[in-house]
Amino acid sequence: MAKVFIYDTTLRDGSQGEGISLSVEDKLKIAGKLDYLGVDYIEGGWPGSNPKDLEFFRRAKELIFKHARLTAFGSTRRPGVRPEEDANLNALLEAGVKTVAIFGKSWDFHVVEALKTTLEENLSMIRETVSYLKNKNLEVIYDAEHFFDGYKNNGEYALKTLQAAAEAGADWIVLCDTNGGSLPDEVNRIVKEVKSRIKTPLGIHAHNDGELAVANSLAAVRAGVDMVQGTINGFGERCGNANLISVIANLEYKMGYRCLPEGCLRRLTEVARYVSEIANVVLPGHQPFVGQSAFTHKGGVHVSAVLKDSRTYEHIPPEVVGNRRRVLVSELSGISNLRYKAQELDLDIPIDAPETRKVIQRIKELEYQGFQFEGAEGSLELLLRKAFGQYRQHFQLESFKIIVEKRAEQETISEAVIKIRVDDRVVHTAAEGNGPVNALDNALRKALEEFYPVIREMHLTDYKVRVLDEKDATAAKVRVLIESRDKTSSWSTVGVSTNIIEASWQALLDSMDYALLKQQKEKTAKRGLR
Amino acid sequence: MAKVFIYDTTLRDGSQGEGISLSVEDKLKIAGKLDYLGVDYIEGGWPGSNPKDLEFFRRAKELIFKHARLTAFGSTRRPGVRPEEDANLNALLEAGVKTVAIFGKSWDFHVVEALKTTLEENLSMIRETVSYLKNKNLEVIYDAEHFFDGYKNNGEYALKTLQAAAEAGADWIVLCDTNGGSLPDEVNRIVKEVKSRIKTPLGIHAHNDGELAVANSLAAVRAGVDMVQGTINGFGERCGNANLISVIANLEYKMGYRCLPEGCLRRLTEVARYVSEIANVVLPGHQPFVGQSAFTHKGGVHVSAVLKDSRTYEHIPPEVVGNRRRVLVSELSGISNLRYKAQELDLDIPIDAPETRKVIQRIKELEYQGFQFEGAEGSLELLLRKAFGQYRQHFQLESFKIIVEKRAEQETISEAVIKIRVDDRVVHTAAEGNGPVNALDNALRKALEEFYPVIREMHLTDYKVRVLDEKDATAAKVRVLIESRDKTSSWSTVGVSTNIIEASWQALLDSMDYALLKQQKEKTAKRGLR
Repeated sequence: MAKVFIYDTTLRDGSQGEGISLSVEDKLKIAGKLDYLGVDYIEGGWPGSNPKDLEFFRRAKELIFKHARLTAFGSTRRPGVRPEEDANLNALLEAGVKTVAIFGKSWDFHVVEALKTTLEENLSMIRETVSYLKNKNLEVIYDAEHFFDGYKNNGEYALKTLQAAAEAGADWIVLCDTNGGSLPDEVNRIVKEVKSRIKTPLGIHAHNDGELAVANSLAAVRAGVDMVQGTINGFGERCGNANLISVIANLEYKMGYRCLPEGCLRRLTEVARYVSEIANVVLPGHQPFVGQSAFTHKGGVHVSAVLKDSRTYEHIPPEVVGNRRRVLVSELSGISNLRYKAQELDLDIPIDAPETRKVIQRIKELEYQGFQFEGAEGSLELLLRKAFGQYRQHFQLESFKIIVEKRAEQETISEAVIKIRVDDRVVHTAAEGNGPVNALDNALRKALEEFYPVIREMHLTDYKVRVLDEKDATAAKVRVLIESRDKTSSWSTVGVSTNIIEASWQALLDSMDYALLKQQKEKTAKRGLR
Repeated sequence: MAKVFIYDTTLRDGSQGEGISLSVEDKLKIAGKLDYLGVDYIEGGWPGSNPKDLEFFRRAKELIFKHARLTAFGSTRRPGVRPEEDANLNALLEAGVKTVAIFGKSWDFHVVEALKTTLEENLSMIRETVSYLKNKNLEVIYDAEHFFDGYKNNGEYALKTLQAAAEAGADWIVLCDTNGGSLPDEVNRIVKEVKSRIKTPLGIHAHNDGELAVANSLAAVRAGVDMVQGTINGFGERCGNANLISVIANLEYKMGYRCLPEGCLRRLTEVARYVSEIANVVLPGHQPFVGQSAFTHKGGVHVSAVLKDSRTYEHIPPEVVGNRRRVLVSELSGISNLRYKAQELDLDIPIDAPETRKVIQRIKELEYQGFQFEGAEGSLELLLRKAFGQYRQHFQLESFKIIVEKRAEQETISEAVIKIRVDDRVVHTAAEGNGPVNALDNALRKALEEFYPVIREMHLTDYKVRVLDEKDATAAKVRVLIESRDKTSSWSTVGVSTNIIEASWQALLDSMDYALLKQQKEKTAKRGLR
């Protein structure tokens, strides 16, 4: 099996994406995870462009990578300056890594318009920079910026820039589709032409402006490049870089190349989700291979066929990339979805009973109101148990009141007062919080703990707010999703209302209710064992 | 220029996407917009599968399409039933359209495993269904489900299914990559092979499970298909369908095909955003061609080059698809970004003054705290004006208090009390609302209107909440974005806090402040004209 080297630039090019901002701490965490995935190169940053990146390289020295080589990014020397005098190249050396990537110009138009120098001087800049770095005993990756656009505009000159890098000893030459506008056929043809002229190993660096970055990367591999550059989840400026997750899955599973160490392919989902969590970007549900919906079935026809044989509507088994199959209970769903779901949740409910139709009706109504059970299986289980008489109420709300108060120049104060009833006892208590929902959470917890110490062992891990009909602005409906966990598992719950407090209350209530249900189930299970 | 027919299935296949749910009203609106874009076919739904779709066709009869043909979707007849007795086909006829699309099985494995019938009976089902519909004088599009998987598994049989449809008179045969796992080279090769055997015009229907749906569609066009099926923004089950937005932009602008009527290409951005708004799905910023970030520049190197010549970092001029260029003021930004932004906002600020560095510092600090000015240009303008002494305070907050109260089984009540000062006058007033933020909005509005009647003319149009560090759950920081408008324009503002009320307050305050600033600017402009 031919090997394709994977060069990750999430930490450098990826962090240029709008809405992405990574701290040094974040970058260190992601670097560790990339090594765990088994990529060959991790581009840590551009030490010459900002001090945060230099700080990253300083601290990265403490990391021990099992597999990956850490690389630092920079540009060819500035026009008219000797390499040893160039601040950007000095910063690159300061990074203290064994592999460096430098980019240079291949497009004559860019040389003249953006760099404001001559075509000849640009060739010297490439040649001297590569030589200088090779003389420092570094592995040198030469990134030919705008190569495809340059080649289409002036092929002769674009090739000369590559020759300059090759002759100066570059270890890799990477053809960049910097503006992301090339088409797969073009990429395939041009790479083949380059390969007939340049003997240095080649790489591809594609951007997604035409929604073709993955296809362009695969087309380049077919034409003979041995390295693919990209980012996890396709993060990056404008429309992003080639998504390495999809590139790797296609190359390894479908095209027979080897990218990662043995057994690492199934880490893709974990890594994709981890990186998006650290970058604080929601991973799109429909993201190929690793998204939550990637192997999710909703339409009735599909669901019943998948339950018969998963190949009917899945291009690969989800576990190959560490993902899993889901079946939705939704508007379009019928009894077969509910049956699958009940199995999945390990619920012993009489699915063929007449209640089932009513439950499906009820779910449809709630979904119409804005509820979504796809991401709130705790609430779904409570709903099903209530419908089938398998639920015992642990407490009742009498009332709550929330007060938020702000005085000029002072900090805003949030306070919740709550009154609940458990059998014949009433607890009336209060708590403060960072905000109104946090105060309510604290107060409910305080009230419940008196009766149910198990509440102390669970905590909320995630809180999401989605405004449903945004155009109604502050009068709009909101959906709140809460995720909770205890020592052994996690569960998610949902609430919907025009009042964010009310919606949060519903989700909070279900969350605590589920914790109590869980304890009850565990007790029953233990009793069963005896 | 060769014509490629565009077949939109947003309303049918697109609505299978997780989290997408379209009412009949929504579907009618989207259909109108698709016709405005100029697609050739609009697949309205599957009347045989649910009554909502039948209702859509009933109401769609009132729509007058300039260009598009409305089509209804269905399947071949069930095994062992005559077409005229098949409920699904009868519902299809009931839809009352002139074009129908029916899908049939091409994959032998599916025929046997999912349909539980014989290979021979499947061929009859295809033949008889197409004949039956052709005899009703309908244009018939035959969708060969799982064609590529079927062809790879048993090419002979897969071709026989197409021949059955062709011989029965189908007007189009559409090759479907239903599971979305095919690669562009495969699609290209297989389409060419089919084309040499089948003379009926061909189409492609690709799914995005390998992140290759757009590339696969283009590869099929290169191999000779004349129709592309897909959805706006790539909505659809699992990882979605081929994104027609990118397909059309690539085919028309880069590959020289004609898809839309003259002059309609620039409607792509408007249509993409409209459809995602109606579907209540956030359009990803990085979406190729039409996303808010698609032509957005953040990195310093890129920004200064783009300002010299946009071709340096843009694959197409944004206006070709109706999008626009943006330059971000952010962490990575320098003075050149701020200068561009000040021009864009039409601010007369002395950008070379020593304050500028302080402002950039301040923006960086706020972004560190979670503010984001990329989508909050109203707040950014206020911040810049304050820094450069071009801001006059219109009112001061003395205090506000919010009370949310719930009693068992009763509706939750939200109330806000506010006290503001304008010069020497104090207003102390109160209002209710749907929720706490709405109550605060109403109370602030009520207080301000006494002094500034212009507030009556502006209203909030959008309210978004993003939980920033979700893992801190209810104690997490939230960012609130508010969009407001009056008769002439719209503006957006931002607030950040662990307290959602406080964050909303900041964004509300900026929103009203901006409305007052705007009035003041307009007055000054009028005075200037005299």
